[in-house]
Amino acid sequence: MSSQFGHAFRISTFGESHGGAVGVVVDGCPPGIELTEADIQPDLDRRRPGQSEIVTPRAEEDACRILSGTFQGRTMGTPIAVVVFNKDARPEAYAEMETAFRPSHADYTYEAKYGVRNWQGGGRASARETIGRVAAAAVAKKVLAHFSAGIEIVAWVKSIHELVAEVDSEKVTQADVEANIVRCPDAAMAARMIEFIKQVRADGDSVGGVIECVVRGCPPGWGEPVFDKIEADLAKGMLSLPATKGFEIGSGFAGTRMRGSEHNDPFEMRGGKVRTRSNRSGGVQGGITNGEAVFFRVAFKPTATIFREQDTVNTTGENTTLKARGRHDPCVLPRAVPMIEAMTALVLCDHALRQRAQTGR
Amino acid sequence: MSSQFGHAFRISTFGESHGGAVGVVVDGCPPGIELTEADIQPDLDRRRPGQSEIVTPRAEEDACRILSGTFQGRTMGTPIAVVVFNKDARPEAYAEMETAFRPSHADYTYEAKYGVRNWQGGGRASARETIGRVAAAAVAKKVLAHFSAGIEIVAWVKSIHELVAEVDSEKVTQADVEANIVRCPDAAMAARMIEFIKQVRADGDSVGGVIECVVRGCPPGWGEPVFDKIEADLAKGMLSLPATKGFEIGSGFAGTRMRGSEHNDPFEMRGGKVRTRSNRSGGVQGGITNGEAVFFRVAFKPTATIFREQDTVNTTGENTTLKARGRHDPCVLPRAVPMIEAMTALVLCDHALRQRAQTGR
Amino acid sequence: MSSQFGHAFRISTFGESHGGAVGVVVDGCPPGIELTEADIQPDLDRRRPGQSEIVTPRAEEDACRILSGTFQGRTMGTPIAVVVFNKDARPEAYAEMETAFRPSHADYTYEAKYGVRNWQGGGRASARETIGRVAAAAVAKKVLAHFSAGIEIVAWVKSIHELVAEVDSEKVTQADVEANIVRCPDAAMAARMIEFIKQVRADGDSVGGVIECVVRGCPPGWGEPVFDKIEADLAKGMLSLPATKGFEIGSGFAGTRMRGSEHNDPFEMRGGKVRTRSNRSGGVQGGITNGEAVFFRVAFKPTATIFREQDTVNTTGENTTLKARGRHDPCVLPRAVPMIEAMTALVLCDHALRQRAQTGR
Amino acid sequence: MSSQFGHAFRISTFGESHGGAVGVVVDGCPPGIELTEADIQPDLDRRRPGQSEIVTPRAEEDACRILSGTFQGRTMGTPIAVVVFNKDARPEAYAEMETAFRPSHADYTYEAKYGVRNWQGGGRASARETIGRVAAAAVAKKVLAHFSAGIEIVAWVKSIHELVAEVDSEKVTQADVEANIVRCPDAAMAARMIEFIKQVRADGDSVGGVIECVVRGCPPGWGEPVFDKIEADLAKGMLSLPATKGFEIGSGFAGTRMRGSEHNDPFEMRGGKVRTRSNRSGGVQGGITNGEAVFFRVAFKPTATIFREQDTVNTTGENTTLKARGRHDPCVLPRAVPMIEAMTALVLCDHALRQRAQTGR
Repeated sequence: MSSQFGHAFRISTFGESHGGAVGVVVDGCPPGIELTEADIQPDLDRRRPGQSEIVTPRAEEDACRILSGTFQGRTMGTPIAVVVFNKDARPEAYAEMETAFRPSHADYTYEAKYGVRNWQGGGRASARETIGRVAAAAVAKKVLAHFSAGIEIVAWVKSIHELVAEVDSEKVTQADVEANIVRCPDAAMAARMIEFIKQVRADGDSVGGVIECVVRGCPPGWGEPVFDKIEADLAKGMLSLPATKGFEIGSGFAGTRMRGSEHNDPFEMRGGKVRTRSNRSGGVQGGITNGEAVFFRVAFKPTATIFREQDTVNTTGENTTLKARGRHDPCVLPRAVPMIEAMTALVLCDHALRQRAQTGR
Repeated sequence: MSSQFGHAFRISTFGESHGGAVGVVVDGCPPGIELTEADIQPDLDRRRPGQSEIVTPRAEEDACRILSGTFQGRTMGTPIAVVVFNKDARPEAYAEMETAFRPSHADYTYEAKYGVRNWQGGGRASARETIGRVAAAAVAKKVLAHFSAGIEIVAWVKSIHELVAEVDSEKVTQADVEANIVRCPDAAMAARMIEFIKQVRADGDSVGGVIECVVRGCPPGWGEPVFDKIEADLAKGMLSLPATKGFEIGSGFAGTRMRGSEHNDPFEMRGGKVRTRSNRSGGVQGGITNGEAVFFRVAFKPTATIFREQDTVNTTGENTTLKARGRHDPCVLPRAVPMIEAMTALVLCDHALRQRAQTGR
Repeated sequence: MSSQFGHAFRISTFGESHGGAVGVVVDGCPPGIELTEADIQPDLDRRRPGQSEIVTPRAEEDACRILSGTFQGRTMGTPIAVVVFNKDARPEAYAEMETAFRPSHADYTYEAKYGVRNWQGGGRASARETIGRVAAAAVAKKVLAHFSAGIEIVAWVKSIHELVAEVDSEKVTQADVEANIVRCPDAAMAARMIEFIKQVRADGDSVGGVIECVVRGCPPGWGEPVFDKIEADLAKGMLSLPATKGFEIGSGFAGTRMRGSEHNDPFEMRGGKVRTRSNRSGGVQGGITNGEAVFFRVAFKPTATIFREQDTVNTTGENTTLKARGRHDPCVLPRAVPMIEAMTALVLCDHALRQRAQTGR
Repeated sequence: MSSQFGHAFRISTFGESHGGAVGVVVDGCPPGIELTEADIQPDLDRRRPGQSEIVTPRAEEDACRILSGTFQGRTMGTPIAVVVFNKDARPEAYAEMETAFRPSHADYTYEAKYGVRNWQGGGRASARETIGRVAAAAVAKKVLAHFSAGIEIVAWVKSIHELVAEVDSEKVTQADVEANIVRCPDAAMAARMIEFIKQVRADGDSVGGVIECVVRGCPPGWGEPVFDKIEADLAKGMLSLPATKGFEIGSGFAGTRMRGSEHNDPFEMRGGKVRTRSNRSGGVQGGITNGEAVFFRVAFKPTATIFREQDTVNTTGENTTLKARGRHDPCVLPRAVPMIEAMTALVLCDHALRQRAQTGR
């Protein structure tokens, strides 16, 4: 099903950018976990629009409400529904999208598939859809903490266009990431990125970049052979996010230019545990975590919506041009950081429960 | 479930490299499709070991047998079971793996997860597992032909280590790919690749590379919003293949260094159809095919098994060294080409049926 | 997943009887179907409390709101979220349930399973949970009408305790059923049933009975071999409803006392179609509809909550007694009629889409 | 998917009665469980044809072979494929079924659904399909024993036509059941049943009956709220078996004629545990086991295939008559006993793993 993710920890999201509400139903959550709106809101705030001068100014406070599944501040094991009502929808800014397809956006494909679409904003293809994911992931993170006390998921902006940051993935913290509005822990490069994004916005243009993510403290044994390898589910989770075009784990594409003798991660005993001396595997071997840091990168294309006149066609099959109005991000990466973390948490939480189902561990 | 893939066209694979057999059960296949072993065998032959001097010499003819689901040469709509018995297993070559973990292989993680593993070969983590996928995909391709007569899936070796081929993705055919044993349609580069792989094997080492894949003739409308975007399911499918470390679609990681005004694919009417002037989207917008060629790349790491002494640990927690015996591919890419095509066919066939379920088209 | 039903037309319900809201997310609905709250409300009104003098007086108007998935009065193919906020919750009437388990209710088993439960009302085990099912089924019925114009699902109260109605399943209409508050189309028996239920309520007791359901106009070919037979999915759907204890289709348990030569339904050509002369099969053969009326019965036990002192134990493991307060149905059957129809519609709609996926019909 | 059952312990069955083989793939099985063909064969022997003078004489030894998923006699956590090759197929006995539909069999509905069918025997609608279920259930039983040492599933023939046995469900053992060929633990009635079935066979006719099943030693807490209640999944499992027409749990249909004050099961402390004084609930409350015996009944219609001339139609739409040849059971119940136990084991094993996933217990 297109709006469901996970097997044991299973979420169902809903909502269009200019409909009544967006939200999620989480099924399979363990009982007895402390959970209130206050656990969910901080991650929603990190992804919400209007949070800084380099993102879309749409004014949504994105206040969430838990409709079910908790009692006296704890989960009950029953479905947890979380909803965020849309407040600042301005469909009038999208009037021309009723008939013209925005290039590199989902207007044409939705029309081709369904014969109908909500042209008032991005509909289901808007990044506003990710509210449900981020809310569910806040729950997932609390569950993960019960499986591994020290587990830590940190994502950051690695590059914007050709501006590439230096980041030590072994040490970077979420505080480092949150230290600036572009969510790049390399302070000097962050400043350049912010200036660059402002310039791009002033040009009516947009840019993309790369986000890196690390998971520390992930126990060995998560992930399953064949189709549900951890890297396969992470890849799916990441490529399901709007505007993503690539995923690589560990050595990734660069690893294709190494020999096996250089690439292999030798095992060694360290601190009484089986460890690897290097981590070109990215924390995963045979699809299963090996206890090292899980490490991957995600490519984001430049935002499709730009404030320049572009060639396109209309719903009656004529060539035309279109220039966007409305409120849009010139660069989605700062707000995508919590989305990447969210999908990571959802994948890991699902596999933690699946591992427990099958092995009791 | 770890060994199942797809929703409407759903496959369940089974089998270890040194167990009794490998195979697949296909559920949900449309009835009335002509199907015999002769439709499946050619793709199995393209992936089987021993087919050329640059792959593993393990002598398996990989002859498949259909056990159910067909009658008088046609599918009946009931589950299609296909099995290939293992013939040339030589478990004695793996005796030292009983106690020592091969670096960058799945030995340690399977042990950590399950507490038990078949150390006689790669077990479920061996590429031999892909026989089930390739067999199922041969069925999927026949189904796809009923949805779109001209649909064509072509994959090829784009690069081996630092040797990069020139290939015109719009024109390359499977015949071009099959013209040489390395499955690279750039004949001059193919010759160099073959020599290089032989040299690497002689060194007891291994190499990786990149495979590209194009799907031509895919109708608009396949793929679903949010989690089951075509690129998400392709990414999962590809990253579920052994030895893969990365996936990118369309402009991919390179697209992160473009501006929106450069990257967007303008629409235009062409031949009475909505087309895009460029194809940086890789044939997919908002997770749904737009009628252009679907185009993506997959990164393969160098084979983990090398014939050199490597540092590792044993099952009792002591440092040791290990040097592989057995029969292994110095480079998995030539045999991975049909695997990539197989996963592509499985993803598309599933989405074709799902699209028909929901929309009747 | 415990709160999800269906494969192609998949619903996810949520909500406790005394939480914030109850509702459903429908995924996989075909696009372009006319749908507003006005299509859903009538069925919710048929199942809501307070509708007559023989049901619970809890005052809930159960007004639904569609939060997503529609645009300009039509479905878009994206998830349809429907929510009903709880208004008249009176948790104070349940104070003693915090520590004592109601006999034959779900208090103890939820506590045993989850270690936590919402003791303010029935929580997730309350029939209030069925709002999500009934709302989703209103959508399913609209979809079914696109597959078979004349399809008609009619359920009615066949018996209450030992009062058994005479009903002609071939002719009974929903208007006949709705003609009285007990939803029994045998008017004379309905009057007796109503008086009987009033008497039982006055006694502080409760009663059960049997509901029959017929589906007319169901095309041949729905249902799938082996596990997902129509009768298997109907049985699951019905036994998932609160207070149900049995299901039988066609000849049911009575058929076990017939010989094959009496029981078999001879085929004959009638009106140019393959028809059966009798219908002991209940419209289903080999798990697949044969074009005859689908006909089945569901047994409901007497409501567990009664206004009499009963022996039970408390959460600290001591014997005690409990006498219910709160507002409860002395007999669930009148309100269960739309629930039965709802589960029937959900099963059939799912299979209609699945049949289209696999066969194109 | 039509041939898959279970979520965490998931099986995929395949095979037609007159195809190459029948079998199953089990995914999600815990690792480290002792398992060889010898664990599976006894249950296959109990269901196989030719085992006594009152069942079909088809001579199949139904010897199973494990193709994957075990190593050195233990499960590995990877898919377990089990196959049984068909030996004594005699398709020539079915020649007339190519054109004429057997009444109350699946010939017509398969043709209506798929437009194609294997008319050489029952194809996928044959009870031969249940070999896969029984083989998988043998694995499930071994898993269940790890969750609850004393768990015991016993089914028996309760009635044949109007012959009803007296059986004490609290004490009956599998040895009692296996003491005679009709699998009825009431010895006197068993003798009458056997004579009756022989007589019916001599008449060229068939009969049905009722099977009862009890599960003792099932811990509290299995089953999930709403759709995946234990009784819902049992009902689905049972109604998915060939020839079943009804299911009831605990008080069942008879309970509809009781009052709540009679029907409720009072709780009491006994042996330091929460117990119920009666068990009209059938061991399940709110869909979740309560630690009492799970107890249910299944109705089987008389076998559709009889050796008498019957009215029917042919594939070209003409009225005709048909008289069966081939080898058939005059009464399926003796061989259905292990099938009922098998589906029970599959349901419980799946829920045991799901319960562990969500709660760690």
